[in-house]
Amino acid sequence: MKKSLLAVGSVALDSVETPFGKVRDVLGGSATFFSAAARFFLPVSIVAVVGKDFPAKYLRFIKSLGVNTSGLEVAQGKTFRWQGYYDYDLNSAKTLRTELNVFQSFDPKLSASHKSCKSVFLANIDPKLQYSVLNQIKSPSLVACDTMNYWIGTQKEALLKLLKHVDIFLCNDAEARELSKEYNLIQCAKWILKRGPKLLVIKKGEHGVLCFSKNFLFLAPAFLLESVMDPTGAGDSFAGGFIGYLASQPKLEEQVIRRAIIYGSVLASYNVESFSLDRLAKLKRPDLLKRFDLFKKVTHF
Amino acid sequence: MKKSLLAVGSVALDSVETPFGKVRDVLGGSATFFSAAARFFLPVSIVAVVGKDFPAKYLRFIKSLGVNTSGLEVAQGKTFRWQGYYDYDLNSAKTLRTELNVFQSFDPKLSASHKSCKSVFLANIDPKLQYSVLNQIKSPSLVACDTMNYWIGTQKEALLKLLKHVDIFLCNDAEARELSKEYNLIQCAKWILKRGPKLLVIKKGEHGVLCFSKNFLFLAPAFLLESVMDPTGAGDSFAGGFIGYLASQPKLEEQVIRRAIIYGSVLASYNVESFSLDRLAKLKRPDLLKRFDLFKKVTHF
Repeated sequence: MKKSLLAVGSVALDSVETPFGKVRDVLGGSATFFSAAARFFLPVSIVAVVGKDFPAKYLRFIKSLGVNTSGLEVAQGKTFRWQGYYDYDLNSAKTLRTELNVFQSFDPKLSASHKSCKSVFLANIDPKLQYSVLNQIKSPSLVACDTMNYWIGTQKEALLKLLKHVDIFLCNDAEARELSKEYNLIQCAKWILKRGPKLLVIKKGEHGVLCFSKNFLFLAPAFLLESVMDPTGAGDSFAGGFIGYLASQPKLEEQVIRRAIIYGSVLASYNVESFSLDRLAKLKRPDLLKRFDLFKKVTHF
Repeated sequence: MKKSLLAVGSVALDSVETPFGKVRDVLGGSATFFSAAARFFLPVSIVAVVGKDFPAKYLRFIKSLGVNTSGLEVAQGKTFRWQGYYDYDLNSAKTLRTELNVFQSFDPKLSASHKSCKSVFLANIDPKLQYSVLNQIKSPSLVACDTMNYWIGTQKEALLKLLKHVDIFLCNDAEARELSKEYNLIQCAKWILKRGPKLLVIKKGEHGVLCFSKNFLFLAPAFLLESVMDPTGAGDSFAGGFIGYLASQPKLEEQVIRRAIIYGSVLASYNVESFSLDRLAKLKRPDLLKRFDLFKKVTHF
């Protein structure tokens, strides 16, 4: 059976301001950024919900990326909206407004074909929902999930229950600390790796990525850019490149995982070069290979 | 002539509190940390001043490291003292008290043998003093300097005058931004590299190091540690490993510079594992090689 990857998360309309520009109601959402990055490595299907107001041009755009949208429900009501801004310190978003809208009652029922997917990425949504989706998948061989501080604070038990069934857990450094109640990141990793995941990926934004397993450690700086326009979606495009590459490979070996981390970093680095999905839309496969090689050039010694 | 390295800076008594312990009036200072790290690669001489109260055991200790202390003046008055604390976020020190004491009138006159040194590290002191020391050196072939936000704020012209004669400039990310008035670090580097230095090394503490030249870029994460006791001296022990290795090599080639950055990171990583110079004192050359190899293992892909 041909490999494919299912991504469950949000498709959103983002309004973002950074020191370098301002956009209103542009395409965003975790499933969108993730799939726009992962599609370079294998076919991707998204499971998400939008409202009746979701612009037809954005739907056409997602399809034009080659992403399977059969699981994208159009519900009565308005699309999920996020508004935020970034200061010169582009590493942390300040949320001005979150309108869940149709996302509030999101409770996906997977189609027969989605149920037989082998690889799944559960983007940052309520851990109970992540669990319910995972439960519908017949025999997944690669399960990855993301989360955020809000769920660690309000749904910790549900998150820990989910983690028992997850192969790869992605979070940022503050979230790893909040979840484990440890400060040192190696201690955080030990705590989290005992709760189920085989791999923990700690994302530090412009400061790079730490990847932990029981058997090895891998550290990667972020690719250094001369111009960062908008960091929105950096984490999800990282996850898309990382999980996409992994899911396309025959085995989850150490060397494959290291390369996957770099592909994730490459996708994230392209994504932040413009607002919304503007850069990812134009990206070609040779661009990935070029920056992958450059990554090696600036890090190896 | 045998290679040797001159380090001009402070020898201090530090009082430090971190979440992991507390020490009072222990050995510290930029020249001390620097030389304790650089001594692994070539003979090091320090030029600094202490007061009559400087404990004989610390002088014996510095000598026991093989560091040449003929340029360590003992002046009337008290030794330079620094008191600071670190929170769980060990990346930034909070200064509680700085007593310059004998350091206030520090105006070193180099001996004949120091004047003929080929490599010199001007640790973080008044840029006018750094310049005056540099002027006494006959024909230096490798000049490196560090600075801090205080000098950028109060002695910017003197610092820029010094930079014209400096091969390698080390600073942290906030200082690079403050000096260049750019936010993006590549832009900062372009600005600084136009002012004289051939190499700029931006230290980001636990987030690693960025090394810029006109011809290449090198990014290194920090070595990840399970236990960090006290970050005091991390920047100076980094500089000691980095400049020490460089000064010991026949040519400043790109590959040599990359390895030097890793040696700097290795020395800094050992230094922060204990208070004062406790860890550096016990360090053996095989420890360096071991962690250098491990660094490659956790970063290459």
